[in-house]
Amino acid sequence: MHKVRVRVVEDALDANNTIARANREDFDRSDVTVVNLMSAPGAGKTALLERVLADTGDVRVAVLEGDVEGSLDAQRLASLHVPVVQINTSGGFGGECHLDANMVRSALPSLPLGDIDLLIVENVGNLVCPAEFRVGEDVRAMVCSVAEGEDKPLKYPLMFRACELAVVNKIDLLPHVDVELEQLLYNLQVVHPGMEHLLTSARTGDGVEALRDWLVSRVKDRVAA
Amino acid sequence: MHKVRVRVVEDALDANNTIARANREDFDRSDVTVVNLMSAPGAGKTALLERVLADTGDVRVAVLEGDVEGSLDAQRLASLHVPVVQINTSGGFGGECHLDANMVRSALPSLPLGDIDLLIVENVGNLVCPAEFRVGEDVRAMVCSVAEGEDKPLKYPLMFRACELAVVNKIDLLPHVDVELEQLLYNLQVVHPGMEHLLTSARTGDGVEALRDWLVSRVKDRVAA
Repeated sequence: MHKVRVRVVEDALDANNTIARANREDFDRSDVTVVNLMSAPGAGKTALLERVLADTGDVRVAVLEGDVEGSLDAQRLASLHVPVVQINTSGGFGGECHLDANMVRSALPSLPLGDIDLLIVENVGNLVCPAEFRVGEDVRAMVCSVAEGEDKPLKYPLMFRACELAVVNKIDLLPHVDVELEQLLYNLQVVHPGMEHLLTSARTGDGVEALRDWLVSRVKDRVAA
Repeated sequence: MHKVRVRVVEDALDANNTIARANREDFDRSDVTVVNLMSAPGAGKTALLERVLADTGDVRVAVLEGDVEGSLDAQRLASLHVPVVQINTSGGFGGECHLDANMVRSALPSLPLGDIDLLIVENVGNLVCPAEFRVGEDVRAMVCSVAEGEDKPLKYPLMFRACELAVVNKIDLLPHVDVELEQLLYNLQVVHPGMEHLLTSARTGDGVEALRDWLVSRVKDRVAA
């Protein structure tokens, strides 16, 4: 049985990559830079985006929200007057734990691709499967909360290897948790040598400007390339 | 393609349930109560178990550790002189985000079933898929950290509905996070009316005794039944 399952999964990933390439072509045609943003549940992706999207200067942003159910995060972001499209993964497949290229493709007609420069795809909260499914993005970034402990890179290495940037969030909690930031950053480098990181707190605003700069630079780099 | 995928998943869940029943029969034969313990990454399952397993009286416990990679948690628990068996889900299938019945079945020969009363299965950190795969357990419990925010029951309802107990952990962080405990408990009841919960802090030890009592009661209830 195991071999059959492996083949089914490989087929599914092949099919996913084909659709991801089609998404990528659509994004390229509209000159849209796409960031796939991932994390464990409750690491603070939406809270960071609320801060970051309050002012992105002349870079026009939209968000694609992935959730198993509901639209709580989309509602939070829509109040910033940013175009937000919600994808729920609960339909049809018993609750998907990740976004795939086809789900993103189905949302494309609802996105104002011609009027934006940057699309942020906020993935389902999960440190495993989202890293395996490309959606047509330019870059991948992940948020980890210091409250999750310093061992997460070692336990979920694929996610940390798949991303260009680790946003280490909730640093305001460092005095209140038994977590060594240095050890967390060391573990990051063990699983992904040279990986870039930023230290942030969505609560205090620390590091939010650096994250905004990083996101905006993805757009400028792309235009310059 | 979607219909094919749904059928494949239904077949996989059927096959899983068949193996889960075989596990259940093996556990019954040895009079072992099994708790499937789930959570998001970094919610504190292992830290709670370190506290709880330090003294379980005359109830003999073993732990089955599920991780994508590594054996960090198993090493932590083994120092308590509790039998611990590690399952890594990274082999063969590109990194599974959950334990399934077959993985647990493959670990059974390594478990001293005849010498224990309670088996705790510490699942892979993930709030979606582990709730869909029975492994032959008697009961399911989940840990959520207050640092994850009060909206998690609404965003991952299947997990909260699948479990009999929600362990609300890291309550020592409540003064330092913008999370209303009352709202979190209200959301719990919205998705799973009547769901039992415990408030704990693995850091301070608050609520650990209540969790230990709850686990030990599963064994006594089973023996009495």
